[in-house]
Amino acid sequence: MTTRIVELRRGILKKNDELAAELRKRYEAAGALVLNLVSSPGTGKTEFLQRTLTGLRERGKRAAALVGDLETDNDARRLASSGAPVRQINTHGICHLDAEMIGKHLEGWEGVELDQLDYLFIENVGNLVCPSSYDLGEKIRVALLSVTEGEDKPLKYPTLFNSADAAVITKMDLAEPCGFDRALALKNINEIRPGIRIFETSAKTGAGMEAWLEYLIKARG
Amino acid sequence: MTTRIVELRRGILKKNDELAAELRKRYEAAGALVLNLVSSPGTGKTEFLQRTLTGLRERGKRAAALVGDLETDNDARRLASSGAPVRQINTHGICHLDAEMIGKHLEGWEGVELDQLDYLFIENVGNLVCPSSYDLGEKIRVALLSVTEGEDKPLKYPTLFNSADAAVITKMDLAEPCGFDRALALKNINEIRPGIRIFETSAKTGAGMEAWLEYLIKARG
Repeated sequence: MTTRIVELRRGILKKNDELAAELRKRYEAAGALVLNLVSSPGTGKTEFLQRTLTGLRERGKRAAALVGDLETDNDARRLASSGAPVRQINTHGICHLDAEMIGKHLEGWEGVELDQLDYLFIENVGNLVCPSSYDLGEKIRVALLSVTEGEDKPLKYPTLFNSADAAVITKMDLAEPCGFDRALALKNINEIRPGIRIFETSAKTGAGMEAWLEYLIKARG
Repeated sequence: MTTRIVELRRGILKKNDELAAELRKRYEAAGALVLNLVSSPGTGKTEFLQRTLTGLRERGKRAAALVGDLETDNDARRLASSGAPVRQINTHGICHLDAEMIGKHLEGWEGVELDQLDYLFIENVGNLVCPSSYDLGEKIRVALLSVTEGEDKPLKYPTLFNSADAAVITKMDLAEPCGFDRALALKNINEIRPGIRIFETSAKTGAGMEAWLEYLIKARG
């Protein structure tokens, strides 16, 4: 059965890669920097993204977000408080976003034109495994990990960390009560993806957000 | 593309259901109570299971565990400290355990015969989505959720909570620093799965473990 799954997946992924390549060309032509945020459920992607959207707005940048969830539009509603345009994608049981879903939701998005944006953020479905295999045409893939999840996650979910362009550690304000071993976490991330840029953040206190926003502004050029 | 995935999944799941039905008969004939533990990465399944295995051993019960991870045998090594037989299943990129993997790993498991066990625990791959669809022949499916993950997870990942027989809230010792809203979490779990048995636990302090062990002993009969 496993062999069959692998074969089926290969065909699906090939089609996804083709669609993602088209999206990548569109993003580049429009001059929008696109980021794909991937993590476990509960890592704090939404709060981190909310702070990011607000911070970019304060710096005069135009940013929007597509938000994936199996069900509910909770995240879109939370993110909309940043003032940025946000559109929810409900996957209804599918465990990841794919390039086709992104393409569809870029169409008919009221008030949003890709070439009017500096940044487009895609908040993926909470899942450390499946989203890793689906290219969404993004320029920067961001792997997020909270201090509450344990330092070994990069080793246990290498595909995501290995394909990421930046890593964000969230909930640093909880590092002490969780007994978070910072050195070990950094070592494990570097073991899977040597030299990757790592941001240590807390959306609660705002720690680390400045460095992250500077990185975004530099990356957009 | 989404339609094609759904069709492909249907065939795979049908085959899995057939294998799971065979496993279920084997477990029942052997008199082993089988539980399937599902949660996000980092919810604390392994520490919770370690305490559970130790507690059952102290009560003279025979328990063993199969542990799924994409990579590493960290969890099997941690669990082995309980003194229970533990076998690691590495899925190498597959985002869930399936019935075929379980069947294979029950064969040739040194020193373990199903009919010598009171309990077999299956710790699934850390993923709130995909494992929900794969029956492993278990009698009891346990959905775990940590206080650090946010109270809305049952609403956002309804398939797991809707198919679970028991829910375990972990890391209750972190409830205060996380600002965990207990009433809201209980309400959301009950909204998806009315009347489900809920255990509020901390593997760190041992809180709630007594009630959980009593439940296990009663369920085994």
